[in-house]
Amino acid sequence: MNRAFSGMIEKALKRYLPAESLYPREIHEAMRYAVLNGGKRFRPVLVLSACEAVGGDPRKALLPACAVELIHCYSLVHDDLPALDNDEMRRGMPTCHRKFGEALAVLTGDALLTRAFELLGGVQPPAKALTLLRELADAAGTKGMIGGQVVDIQFSSNGSRPALDFSALDYINRHKTGRLIRVSAVMGAIVGTRSTSKLKHMQRYGEALGLAFQVVDDIMDGDGYLRLMNFNEAQQKAEELISKAEREALTFGARGKQLIELANFLLTRIPTQNDAQVGIKN
Amino acid sequence: MNRAFSGMIEKALKRYLPAESLYPREIHEAMRYAVLNGGKRFRPVLVLSACEAVGGDPRKALLPACAVELIHCYSLVHDDLPALDNDEMRRGMPTCHRKFGEALAVLTGDALLTRAFELLGGVQPPAKALTLLRELADAAGTKGMIGGQVVDIQFSSNGSRPALDFSALDYINRHKTGRLIRVSAVMGAIVGTRSTSKLKHMQRYGEALGLAFQVVDDIMDGDGYLRLMNFNEAQQKAEELISKAEREALTFGARGKQLIELANFLLTRIPTQNDAQVGIKN
Repeated sequence: MNRAFSGMIEKALKRYLPAESLYPREIHEAMRYAVLNGGKRFRPVLVLSACEAVGGDPRKALLPACAVELIHCYSLVHDDLPALDNDEMRRGMPTCHRKFGEALAVLTGDALLTRAFELLGGVQPPAKALTLLRELADAAGTKGMIGGQVVDIQFSSNGSRPALDFSALDYINRHKTGRLIRVSAVMGAIVGTRSTSKLKHMQRYGEALGLAFQVVDDIMDGDGYLRLMNFNEAQQKAEELISKAEREALTFGARGKQLIELANFLLTRIPTQNDAQVGIKN
Repeated sequence: MNRAFSGMIEKALKRYLPAESLYPREIHEAMRYAVLNGGKRFRPVLVLSACEAVGGDPRKALLPACAVELIHCYSLVHDDLPALDNDEMRRGMPTCHRKFGEALAVLTGDALLTRAFELLGGVQPPAKALTLLRELADAAGTKGMIGGQVVDIQFSSNGSRPALDFSALDYINRHKTGRLIRVSAVMGAIVGTRSTSKLKHMQRYGEALGLAFQVVDDIMDGDGYLRLMNFNEAQQKAEELISKAEREALTFGARGKQLIELANFLLTRIPTQNDAQVGIKN
């Protein structure tokens, strides 16, 4: 992924998160802990790349880029909670609730979500800021990411877990992961252009990329799609989606280079069948 | 409180919350359960009243009014969680996590918070929507409500509870409850006027009203301020704050009638010393 872009994002995130010294200190420490954790910044890099692809100045997309990353990070903090996935470690470090306690972790997620929307309040011109706000809220809410999380919980709750069918899995993937990746591409395009044709291509690119992201993730984890198809089928599906994304990226010509790179990045993450954890969870 | 206003708000909340029939059904049921619970709607009635007081059309303030109520409701859902206040009942009904499970309650709070900001995306003109967004995010975030919750947790955690002093209590009240009430008054004024002088009076009104609200609440619960002052002192403090709010409301002339009513509503809630639960918790 583009190092210049991820460097810009890292700097911006540090700047846009409240300083640790600010009272009450603990929540600001926890917010920074949950975000400044060496994440790949896939979504915000995508926002900047999409903006560049449509002919915009990627620096102007930094606010929505950071906003979507804060949304992603809040969702991880809440997902990790004992009541949800009950995860103890993330990226080799104790999860937020393990480090700061459950109560503060709930509030940290809330604070990151609030800050995400606050950042959009700084976008100019105001009409564009509002379009971004509506897109991001739609993608992050119950018609998007949260909807996907709800269905995911229904199919993974202990004991009464119903049989996962393809349509439920597809819903989870399109919503829980897909919508936030798709909106990253869309927000970048909104900042950079008014062309509805470019926006349409970007939507299709983001849609394919978001689904590919999830299939690759499933292959790496031996879960999700691998509960419904074998390794080769999942690999083929991922490759098809990545090709589809690349075809859309090509419509932007040379400026779409970073979009191609992001798609290729997913391709390089597909493990070989021996490396994949197939059979462990499946 | 104004019945016409609370009727308008109830209708608008029903309209702005996703229908229960929408997939995934459970989260939309939980959102409606958490909001449509016979709440007093103090904050949204204040938004409409403030808009009217500065000469605006209260109907134009319905979106920010509903937004602040959704923020209030999300904060209750998360506050009630076992990791925070661990409350089992609210308004005579099981709390959200008791009814829908903890995982869904976390997501329900997240969804209400997201929907609150989404509603502001519908305000016209866009520049005004962005001003409201910045004000509401500031009041709801770590510099406001969440900051108050964090300090509240620090002083109420079992076992290691440090001695509550006046400055910490004042911080909690100003932030946890006060900021959301203050911003309700401010948002109503922003919708209805461009006059910075009216806005300033409204800020002072909201500030006094928000603090009064908390002192009255403390008197009713026998907690908070009653851990630091006796009943008569707290009663006097509440009455002083209410008078202060009324003085500011009077600057709006006849249109400020609803603001006076809201202040009087608080006055009527102050229990007599015999009725108050003084000595139970204190």
